[in-house]
This record gives sequence, structure tokens and C-alpha cells, in this order.
Amino acid sequence: MTKFLSDNAAPVHPKVWEAMRAADEADNPYDGDTLSSELDARFTDLFGRECAAMWVATGTAANCLALATMCQPHGGVVCHEEAHIEVDEGGAPGFYLHGAKLMLCPGEGAKLTPSGIAELIDPIRDDVHQVQPHAVAITQASEYGLIYSREELDALQHFARSHGLGLHMDGARFANAAASLDGAAAYAAHGADSLAFGFIKNGGMSAEAVVLFDPERAELVKYRRKRAGHLQCKGRYLAAQILAMLEDDLWLANARHANAAAQSIAGGCEERLMHPVEANELFVRLSANERKALRAQGFEFYDWGADAARFVTAWNTRADDAEALGKAIASL
Amino acid sequence: MTKFLSDNAAPVHPKVWEAMRAADEADNPYDGDTLSSELDARFTDLFGRECAAMWVATGTAANCLALATMCQPHGGVVCHEEAHIEVDEGGAPGFYLHGAKLMLCPGEGAKLTPSGIAELIDPIRDDVHQVQPHAVAITQASEYGLIYSREELDALQHFARSHGLGLHMDGARFANAAASLDGAAAYAAHGADSLAFGFIKNGGMSAEAVVLFDPERAELVKYRRKRAGHLQCKGRYLAAQILAMLEDDLWLANARHANAAAQSIAGGCEERLMHPVEANELFVRLSANERKALRAQGFEFYDWGADAARFVTAWNTRADDAEALGKAIASL
Amino acid sequence: MTKFLSDNAAPVHPKVWEAMRAADEADNPYDGDTLSSELDARFTDLFGRECAAMWVATGTAANCLALATMCQPHGGVVCHEEAHIEVDEGGAPGFYLHGAKLMLCPGEGAKLTPSGIAELIDPIRDDVHQVQPHAVAITQASEYGLIYSREELDALQHFARSHGLGLHMDGARFANAAASLDGAAAYAAHGADSLAFGFIKNGGMSAEAVVLFDPERAELVKYRRKRAGHLQCKGRYLAAQILAMLEDDLWLANARHANAAAQSIAGGCEERLMHPVEANELFVRLSANERKALRAQGFEFYDWGADAARFVTAWNTRADDAEALGKAIASL
Amino acid sequence: MTKFLSDNAAPVHPKVWEAMRAADEADNPYDGDTLSSELDARFTDLFGRECAAMWVATGTAANCLALATMCQPHGGVVCHEEAHIEVDEGGAPGFYLHGAKLMLCPGEGAKLTPSGIAELIDPIRDDVHQVQPHAVAITQASEYGLIYSREELDALQHFARSHGLGLHMDGARFANAAASLDGAAAYAAHGADSLAFGFIKNGGMSAEAVVLFDPERAELVKYRRKRAGHLQCKGRYLAAQILAMLEDDLWLANARHANAAAQSIAGGCEERLMHPVEANELFVRLSANERKALRAQGFEFYDWGADAARFVTAWNTRADDAEALGKAIASL
Repeated sequence: MTKFLSDNAAPVHPKVWEAMRAADEADNPYDGDTLSSELDARFTDLFGRECAAMWVATGTAANCLALATMCQPHGGVVCHEEAHIEVDEGGAPGFYLHGAKLMLCPGEGAKLTPSGIAELIDPIRDDVHQVQPHAVAITQASEYGLIYSREELDALQHFARSHGLGLHMDGARFANAAASLDGAAAYAAHGADSLAFGFIKNGGMSAEAVVLFDPERAELVKYRRKRAGHLQCKGRYLAAQILAMLEDDLWLANARHANAAAQSIAGGCEERLMHPVEANELFVRLSANERKALRAQGFEFYDWGADAARFVTAWNTRADDAEALGKAIASL
Repeated sequence: MTKFLSDNAAPVHPKVWEAMRAADEADNPYDGDTLSSELDARFTDLFGRECAAMWVATGTAANCLALATMCQPHGGVVCHEEAHIEVDEGGAPGFYLHGAKLMLCPGEGAKLTPSGIAELIDPIRDDVHQVQPHAVAITQASEYGLIYSREELDALQHFARSHGLGLHMDGARFANAAASLDGAAAYAAHGADSLAFGFIKNGGMSAEAVVLFDPERAELVKYRRKRAGHLQCKGRYLAAQILAMLEDDLWLANARHANAAAQSIAGGCEERLMHPVEANELFVRLSANERKALRAQGFEFYDWGADAARFVTAWNTRADDAEALGKAIASL
Repeated sequence: MTKFLSDNAAPVHPKVWEAMRAADEADNPYDGDTLSSELDARFTDLFGRECAAMWVATGTAANCLALATMCQPHGGVVCHEEAHIEVDEGGAPGFYLHGAKLMLCPGEGAKLTPSGIAELIDPIRDDVHQVQPHAVAITQASEYGLIYSREELDALQHFARSHGLGLHMDGARFANAAASLDGAAAYAAHGADSLAFGFIKNGGMSAEAVVLFDPERAELVKYRRKRAGHLQCKGRYLAAQILAMLEDDLWLANARHANAAAQSIAGGCEERLMHPVEANELFVRLSANERKALRAQGFEFYDWGADAARFVTAWNTRADDAEALGKAIASL
Repeated sequence: MTKFLSDNAAPVHPKVWEAMRAADEADNPYDGDTLSSELDARFTDLFGRECAAMWVATGTAANCLALATMCQPHGGVVCHEEAHIEVDEGGAPGFYLHGAKLMLCPGEGAKLTPSGIAELIDPIRDDVHQVQPHAVAITQASEYGLIYSREELDALQHFARSHGLGLHMDGARFANAAASLDGAAAYAAHGADSLAFGFIKNGGMSAEAVVLFDPERAELVKYRRKRAGHLQCKGRYLAAQILAMLEDDLWLANARHANAAAQSIAGGCEERLMHPVEANELFVRLSANERKALRAQGFEFYDWGADAARFVTAWNTRADDAEALGKAIASL
């Protein structure tokens, strides 16, 4: 059985296991340990601008804690109508933001644009009867595996600042986005005030990073993380995962591998693609019979509506398997 | 350096590591994997009554999710004035219970009694101006390492039921309590509607269990767990930890070891003890100079106020070290 | 200056003033007074089914308190995408429901239909990643002044029950709806589990009623009302307003008057109407120049987008003024 | 029957009625009317420092909205253990502050002192496990009718500022406090960042004022007021009440009257007083038999525990009745 279901159940990378084992010796609990203390500096190096970074166990928590630094309970967060925070997080933003509203914006490929956001928020009257936007959340790579370019991010940053809005980036697949942008982390996160930097899909086990490009907001996140039950007492095992992923750019290598596998598949089905393949997800037009045929050959994947399928590659996808899938689709 | 600071930073037990590694092969994400699916049955066996069990990463989350099944946002939870949920969880109950109130009750050794609770809640007028109690939360073993006996639990259960209150048990050190009660899990959790069953302090890495003795409440916990960002996508690694701890009663063996170490220390300082030593914590009257002397011998521990110290043993405390500490105190 | 801006700033009806003055003598505070105690019985009479009724100062509070009886914090409330609770209540449902989600449904004339709701909620997967609907909220009369007929309500009730959803009715202009349905309150509220019965727009000053057709839910509303700071100590003045409105069906007489005035205007602009006029609101296609011309004649009203205007009549709209407005539009 | 139960059910003062009737003519809805627009200036005049003022219907809402400007959801508000916000507001602070914690402080006569607060908050470790205080709330006059002097307020302000805490004043009986301090509003509110200025007990019907001495915080209160369902559409009737009370210092005259009545009663029972009588409340040691005897003479009042009674005077207490009560107690 060859799985292209999702990257979210992939095994843990051997180097991550190693780092976790190496963290076994007792250290201070919570985030008082040596490894956790290194995070700020490591991410500051990576992004080339001062930042604060904290581990949490899920992207949902990472997104919500970051958004809490930007959006008051009576405000709103503009996001794509198919954004993960709207569609797949069980209402977590409503919980963490104490009832703030997600303001849903359409947009090609699950990406937001300044003009799209403007269309949504410009009609909002500046009075207390209407929830005012406080922040914008984008996803890099988007829910359809598309990448925001430096220019697009620049435009969004400019828009957000001129409207007094925070800009958060959901980076569940940030590594795949950065890999797609020549590995430039700073480039891929350009303009964001905060980033939920995902490591779990990319070879980690249980650690994502909340990265704040305004380190003064870290205190709020730290208090809220504890209050949300996300301050693990053996936090060193989470820090170890993240540090292992950053070491020698393992995060990028893994993501490049997954992206390459996606390209390999894409090579076999270009005319069927619903979206360009820019990261590690493919949305492919396939009839029910075609999907059946693929499954009969041992490929696992999710249906995407009635006439398509989603394939996701991961750090551990075998190149052979990807190639085989591409060929299988091409042969349909 | 011999650490008696806390059990919350102890290493992960080798068998837990093994089990995690064995879970590496991809399975369904979240809690749809084989291991997670076994939890209900395993805890039902353990407690001898039907229950639902779900992993979460922290005791704080476990406590709060369980309490959310019992306490409406406009209600209150009676707990000891020194309870962990009141003193050390950063206001998490206020967050998870949407503003419900902790109603603080005194009580010897951080334990609650029916009469103590009655004294607190009987004067509450049955009108909307006053927050009404919806639940009671106790800690087994208590914050001072004391155990609720079967009889005490029986009385609390009777009190809670007759007052229409849910009864939750914070079991961060439930294993130590059960070990102290001859290993009888059912006995140690008698009467509780829910239990936050701690594994992390006792050899786990990042998995506690929310155990609900009314399985119908599980759906609420599952939705709220997701909403709180606590539904990890690689949940099989958490289930693996718990199952490893339950296997061959590793949880009990570890707790017995820690308890024995505590008894060994206690043997050297009985007249100095502030509380009986019933689990793995010791609160010992020691002057500043005496503490200094102990630290000079390499013992690490926390001060407890101005005239005492707290020592905590763990699954990995060496018997020699415990004995040495006992002797060192005796020699002061 | 003849105002057709809104009914929400109309004067208080003389009989309401009288009743308030008559309540001046001290009685028990909060809702322990004689007048407040009469509400349950009065509404039970009116609707012909047992109900509990409580005053609050605004429709926003009434809607939210009622919805809190039906929707858990992790659930959702289906409402029209232009519903007042979504568009004009400053995020109050997010606050009162502790982060629950409004699930927006399109629908002609701001009315919901079972098929429209089904289209929205049927695709929601029955898993914890997606917010599940717990309730449906409709507005009677709708935001465009349209009435749900007995048959439509029947269908909605059937849909709601078969899907396990509560059914709430926002009745800010319930009186106008009932008046339009031959005065039958029971008929206009058919199928609803709760009703926010509006009196303020219709001649009251500061009292709406939360009407619960399942009186067992009253306790929750009472605790939540207090908790929201809506339990006024001199509540008898609010009860007095409501009782005065119910007395001799003043509420219906006032609403009939307003509806008749709306019909009178409608007579002059049928071909310009964006929606049928079924209550006391008119949405009329008028160019900027036409609106200017009307304003030059002393008529006050709100623009409705770029090419239309909204006119609202009230209990105190003078028949002459309505007629004059109808003629003025006809003459454009 | 002569009522000394509470001032919270007293009739509305004739001048307040007049002002409300005079507001009958339609004006802009919500707080866009002429009367509401005057509030900022009127309170600025009264207090001699720039302030923003908004009406709400209850003291509970006023307190909570003001506190929301000072205390984050993860923070705490220090208040007296018998403060109204803790004991009698049905958990409203937990709701409005999204789960923030009330931190209970003892203190003679329900008053707080810097040293009392310090004793409570100094032991709080500056780490995320413990809820940090964000604000202090005091009550002027206190729940036992005691007044904070200028010096005491000065000390509290100094303490609050030096600890980075906001200082809120619950002024349900602020008028009685100011009357007791020679009528100096500025003096009675000295040092506070916000004041819930009560008018209802003192002759109003349904309007209290949130007064913010930092007008920049007004926007937050306005958004939160709407979100809490407290922005009434016919707000001019609330503004009218407040303006009538301020006109010619009616608020002070009423309070002086009530205070004088309290003094008159106090004259008959000085040796029985549990607290000095500084405003309009008396707490009087009276056995069950004595209370029975007084009630037999037609006096109404609340028991205060087993051995005492509470008497409250109001703007409409007749001097004769107060004198009679004083004599009746003296004759026991």
C-alpha cells in the first residue's frame, strides 16, 4: 500500500528521534531547559530578523496563540473561506480569541489578495454594530499547495499595515513553501508579524513553532500557552525536535524531497491538475472509475469532491512510488 | 548532583521509548489509529467499569477538558485553595470553562472533605446573583502527597451526588496514589466521574489520559480537545506512551519505586515531616542553614516557604540517592 | 422633517409611559416584583403553549441568551448571511456563546429554507475537525420585512427537529409579522423553541422579552442574564412596559398601524420594490437623484446600497406622512 | 410598612421622570442622540479631568466593561473578598473578562489597603504558571458603607501605578460616598482609572455611567458594550436619566438625604454598630428577638448573619421613618 493520503501521519525522522533521545537527561521543566532556550536565537538566525519562538504541540494551537496577539475578542480575523482555521480546526479560533470572528474571503487557490480583502472589509461600517477586522491570516503554502511570492507578500504586508491589521501566516507546510522559494525562509515569511512554523508534517512528531517577529508579543503567547494547557513539562523533547529539524537544514531537505516527489507525480498528469503544483500537494481531476483503478493498484489518497482526488507527498515518500503514481495516472 | 526537585522533568522510561518507536509506521492520523482506539478498552479493564479515555499532552488540559463536561460557564468548581488548578495552571480553568469560577475550600493536607465543602457552599444563596457550584475537583494524591482512602472517596461521592455536583479527580500523581493503595486503580478512583490520569511524571513523555466514567461525555471532550488544539495529528505516539505504561502495570511499578524512595527518605526525618508521606512527595521542616548544608552535599530540591523544603522522588530515583538523602537529613 | 429612518428611535407609547409610572411604588428588586412574576402566564396565554418569559434591555441580549440554551461553545448556529445577529450585533453571539460559530446561509429575502440549510450543513463531516450545527436562527419578520408563513415554519421546525437542532426566532419585529398574519402570535412563532419578542421598536422603551417554549431552559437564561449584567434591579419598569404592550393587544394595534403605513407607501411604488412589503419595511429602488429629490421634500430615510433606499414605518408614523411619501415616490 | 431593605428598588425621582419624558421626541438611535453626546463633557466638568462617559443599564455591566480595559483574559483583578463583583454579580467578571480571575483580598470594612494587596500579590511568582494581577477594583462606598478618604485613595493609586495595575472603582453608591466627602466628586474618585458611577439606587431608573479617566479606552468599552447587548437603541432615555441626576447636583442632594437618614438611625444605636456609618448603610447587631420586635413595628430590613441586620436608606426615605427606626432600636 502506497500512501498519498496526507503528510500528517508520516513517521518521525530518524534525526528527530535521535535528538529526542539525546534530550532524555533531566533538565529544567517546562521551557526552562537548555534546548528551549535556544529557540529564539535559532529562528532569529534563520529569518535574519529578531524573533521569539515557542514550541506548541499543534498547528491549531500555534495559529490561535499567534492570532491572540493581534485580535481582540471583539475583533475579526480575515482569512480565506477555505482556510484551515475556518474549515478544519473545530472552532479553535473562536475559543482562543474569545469569540472573535473569522471574516471569510474568497480567492483563487485559497490565496488572499489585497483587493480581495478590500472588497470584504471596505463595506464594513466603522461603528460598533459591526465587527472590525483586526488581523489577516494567510497560509503559506495555501490549502491548495500554492505559494505566496515575495511580491504578493509585500503587497499584503503593505495592505495590512495601512489598514492597521496584523498579518499572521499559517505555515503548516511552510517548509514546502520555503523549499519552493529556493529555500529562503525569510523570503517565504516576508511581511508576516507571526508564523506558525510547521515541523510535524515534515518529519517531526509533536512540535510546531510559534514564531513572533515582534518579540515583545512573546509574553502574551507564553501566558496564553500555559493557560491553554500547552506548556508541556518535558518541553525539552519538543525543543529537541525543532532543533533537529533546523540542524543542517533538515527541514528544507525534507521539504525539497516531498516537493520533488510531487513534481514527479505532476509530470504524469499536468492536464488534469486543478491547481499548479508548487509544494507537496496535488489536486487532480479523476473520475470515480479512475480513482477506483488507482486504488486497485495500491495507491491511497483522499477524494476531493466528486471528480477529483488529493495526493500529498511527504519527507518519506519514495521516489519510486511517486514516479509509479505519476505513470499510473498518465496511463489512465 | 542528585535531583529531588520534581518528577516532572524525569527522563522517559525505556519501554515508553520502545513503544513510541514501534508506532513509527504510518497509521491513521489524529486519534483514528489502532493504538488510540485501544484506550477505551484498556482503561475499562483497568477500572472495572466502562469508561472512555483520550490522550492529551498535559494534565492542565486533561483537568480542564474533564471539568468542561460538568461545569457550565456560569457555574463553579469547588477545589482546594491550594489545588494545582487554582494555583499553578495559569488560569486554565477560567479559559476552558469560559469564565466559570473556582470556589476555594480549605482542608488539611490539601484534601477536601464533605463538611469542608458544605461549609463553603451551604451559605450560597440559591439565586442568580451567586455562582452556583456545579462540580468538585479533588487531587489524588493531593498537592501534599496525601491519599484519599476508599472511605473518604465514598463520602465525597455521596456528598457530590446528593448535591448534584460532578466529581473530578486530578490524578497528576494518580499512579503514586494507587500504588499506595495496594495498586488498586479502581479503588483509588472510586466515586470519580472523571480522572486526569497522569503518566508524564511517572515515565511518560507527553501523554496524560482523560478518563470519563460516563462514556457519553466523551463526545464533548473530543470536540473540545480539538477546539483547544490538543488533537495531535500523530496521536499514535501519545497512545503508545499510555499503552506502554499500562502494559504489565509499568505505571504501578514505576510509582511503587518512587513511593519506596520517598519512604526511604522519610525514614531519616520523621519528626521533621509536615505531612505524612503517602506517595512520592516529602515536605520537610528545614532551616535555611540546613537546606544550605544539604545543597552543599549535592542535593537539589525546592524551598517550601521559609522553613521547609519539598523533595520529590520519581520512577528513576536511585535507591542509594534516596537513602543518602535520608541519612543526610538525619545527620543535620 | 418626516422620519422613515427606523422604528428603533420612535417615542415611547403613552400607555407604556403610564404603566411605567404606575410601577413607581417600591416592590421587590430584580425580577422578584409582582409585574415580572406575571410574564410567564401572560405569554403562556398569548401563545397558547406553556412558556417562560424574561425581560432584557435589548434584542441582542434576548437573541444571545436564547441561543445559549441551544448551542454549546463548540457548536454553530445557522443563520442567514444577512441576519442581524451576524451583521449588526457587534459579535455578540461570539461573546454570549463563548466562541460558537455563526454558519451563514444564503436565502431569498433574508429567509432560510430547509433546502438552503441542508445545502450548507450536509457537507459538514461528522467529525471533530468541523464545527457542528447546534441550532438555527431565523428572523420573523426577516431583515427584508418578509414573513415566514405557517407552512414555512412547519417545514423549518421539521427540519430542525430531524437534525437535532434548536430553532430560535429573532422577533425584533415579531409584532409586525404577527399583525401581517392576522394577529396570530402562536401562528407567527410556530415551531420556534425560543423567541426574542421585540417591544422596543413597537412603542416600548427598553424591554424585550426572551420567550422560551421549553420553560425548563429558563433557569439557564436567568443565570446567564444576571451574568451578562442584564438583570436590572428595578426590573419592574421593564415588566411594566411589556405588560402594557400586551394589554388589550396594544402590541398588535401598534404593529398594524405601522404595517398599514408601509402598505400606503408601497401603493405608490410597487414596481420599484425590491421585496414584497409584508411588514413595516420597504426597500425601494431609487437613484441618487431621486433620493435627493425626496430628501429635499423633507423625507428622511437610509440609503440601501447605491441604487435603493430603505423606509421604515413605526407605531407613530402619521398616515398623512406615509401617504405623502407614497405620492412623492410615485411622482418621481 | 417602612422599608429599609435596599435602595435598589426605590422609585424613580420625579425630575428623572420629567427628563425621560422630555426625551420622547425621536432623535438618533443608540448613543448618537444629543443627550448621550453630552455625557463626556458633563462628567469632565464634574471631575475636573478629561473623561469619557457611557451609559449602561446596570452596575454589573459598568464594572465589567471598565475592568475589560485593564485586565487581559489571562490576568487577574484584585478585589475585596466580599466585593460585589465577587459575591453578587453571578460571575459576570468571569464572563466579561473571558475567564480572568478575581483575586480575593481581606480587609477591614470591605476596604482594600496597599499592604493588604501586597500581602496577596507579592507571593505570586512572576511566571506563567500563576495568574498575574492586572488591576485592582475597590468599592466607594464599600460594601459596608465605608468611605475611602483622599489619603487612602492616594496610597492605592500610588501602589497600583508602581505595580503596573489599573485601578477601578465600583461606585454603586458613589453619590453617597461623595456626599460624605463634602460633595467632592473628584475627591471621591481620586486616583481611579475608571468608575462605575451609580445613579439607579439614588433616584434613577436604569442608567449607570461608565466613566473612564483615560478617554482613549472609550473605544474598547463602546465595542464591548455593543457586543454585550448593552447598547440600547433608545439610549436617549438613559442619557436623560443621568443628565437629570447631574443637573443642579440632584445626585448629591439625594445622596445627602439618604446619608442624613442613616445618621439619624445611627444616633439610636451607636453601640450596636458593626461599622461606622459613613454613607447610607447600617450594619447593626440585633438578636433574632430584637429583629422580630422591629419587624412587628413595621420595619423591613435584611438579616445580616445570625446576629445582625442591615438597614439601607434611600433618596426617598422619610426623615420621620428614619428617626422612628432609630428610636425603636434605642428602645429595644
